[in-house]
Amino acid sequence: MNKARRQERRIALTKILADNPNQLFPLSYFSGMFDTAKSTICEDMEAIRQLLEELDLGRLETVSGAAGGVKFLPWRSADSAHGLLAEVADKLSAPERIIPGGFLYMSDILFMPHLMTRVGEIFLSRFADAGPDCIMTVETKGIPLAFATARAFNLPLVIARRGSRVTEGSSVSINYVTGSSRRIQTMSLPRRAIPQGARVLIIDDFMKAGGTARGMLDLAQEVGATVVGTGVLVATAEPEQKLIEGYLSLLILHGVDENNKKTDIRPAI
Amino acid sequence: MNKARRQERRIALTKILADNPNQLFPLSYFSGMFDTAKSTICEDMEAIRQLLEELDLGRLETVSGAAGGVKFLPWRSADSAHGLLAEVADKLSAPERIIPGGFLYMSDILFMPHLMTRVGEIFLSRFADAGPDCIMTVETKGIPLAFATARAFNLPLVIARRGSRVTEGSSVSINYVTGSSRRIQTMSLPRRAIPQGARVLIIDDFMKAGGTARGMLDLAQEVGATVVGTGVLVATAEPEQKLIEGYLSLLILHGVDENNKKTDIRPAI
Repeated sequence: MNKARRQERRIALTKILADNPNQLFPLSYFSGMFDTAKSTICEDMEAIRQLLEELDLGRLETVSGAAGGVKFLPWRSADSAHGLLAEVADKLSAPERIIPGGFLYMSDILFMPHLMTRVGEIFLSRFADAGPDCIMTVETKGIPLAFATARAFNLPLVIARRGSRVTEGSSVSINYVTGSSRRIQTMSLPRRAIPQGARVLIIDDFMKAGGTARGMLDLAQEVGATVVGTGVLVATAEPEQKLIEGYLSLLILHGVDENNKKTDIRPAI
Repeated sequence: MNKARRQERRIALTKILADNPNQLFPLSYFSGMFDTAKSTICEDMEAIRQLLEELDLGRLETVSGAAGGVKFLPWRSADSAHGLLAEVADKLSAPERIIPGGFLYMSDILFMPHLMTRVGEIFLSRFADAGPDCIMTVETKGIPLAFATARAFNLPLVIARRGSRVTEGSSVSINYVTGSSRRIQTMSLPRRAIPQGARVLIIDDFMKAGGTARGMLDLAQEVGATVVGTGVLVATAEPEQKLIEGYLSLLILHGVDENNKKTDIRPAI
């Protein structure tokens, strides 16, 4: 095997791994694809692993044993995560984002594919040890972030709906009280969306009192699942006491001063 | 420069390009990053380009001139697209997906990150020439696919809501009639979501009579944008006459036979 061939193989391996986050590939898969010895693929993987680590571009993990192989995790180091969140906080602090009533316009940021992809990778880095089987959110604005997180984890996404839809078969609904406005709302999931005993990671864009996250927790438990973590992009500093415990918020919104057009929002990790 | 260094650089370049679809990088960006001559980066890019093309893993395009550089497009060949859609059609034909009333349970497929990512790349391959500035959809089930398409294009996503939300500032609403059930619905967008004169690509999961797509078209025009294309994952064969023209459907649903538990759905491209 000449050098040029090895180079080409490593370019291809890098591309395939990057396109398939958290998917386990047996070494035999690649040795078949490139008609090469497994030991050679091992060397390739080691070279790729070292380089990704050196440049903080993610982790390549080796799983040993008969059912083993390699998988790529789009891991974000603490430094990289902090840098990205500082950038998002900076964007969100722009005075023109303040909407009458002291709300913050966030939709454009929440719907930016390259940003949400990276935030999803931060959630992977933080929640990988929790070992979820699926990612859950509730419509609407948190969906892109939850989808990006599901992509980083290579897991199915489950979306709770407000109200139940005829096109989704039998469903489970709960009523919950939004913590801030004290309104009663309904949230539902198709029965078949989450398998019994599944380990669920809840992802949402925003948390104030935590009523919506609490509703998702109750709904997940209602269908026989276990919630192994809750992650939100932004949580408000007030009220300090939320309706759920042990959540991770990447940014904390300390306040929106409508009169002076100032927003105080900071990375929390 | 020794061989090992070149190999490492090409691994890193491949990873960075794959992570940033449709983003133009000046060659000087990489020559700075790797402290290497531009001509060397050019050679690297040519090697990567050839290999990606050979393995059908996407396209590397060179833009010449002062504002030039390279960008990676996660392009899907017709063969690759057809194979993927045949796989999706096969999954959707499973008898247990048929819901009383002759509906088809599709949510799990629509929320599978690796599948939707690839379908989004098919839309990129089909609509790149239309030159959109943003991707638009309406809540809820089409959001992951629209987000994946926006990611492939590296463009912002815009989500029309049913009803208008206080947290998004002043908004534009339209009423529209769903083509199949003839109900009047409302759809709205924050005024600031789409800039005047923007070129919009509409993406949705499902089309029956086309009333929802028609509503999005009207809403986009209402805010001063131009719709340059409409893509849906599944369209029904009946009614043949839809409320919009010139849409692209990747799959055609010819019929759901509830009694015999048979679904006839086929790739359309």
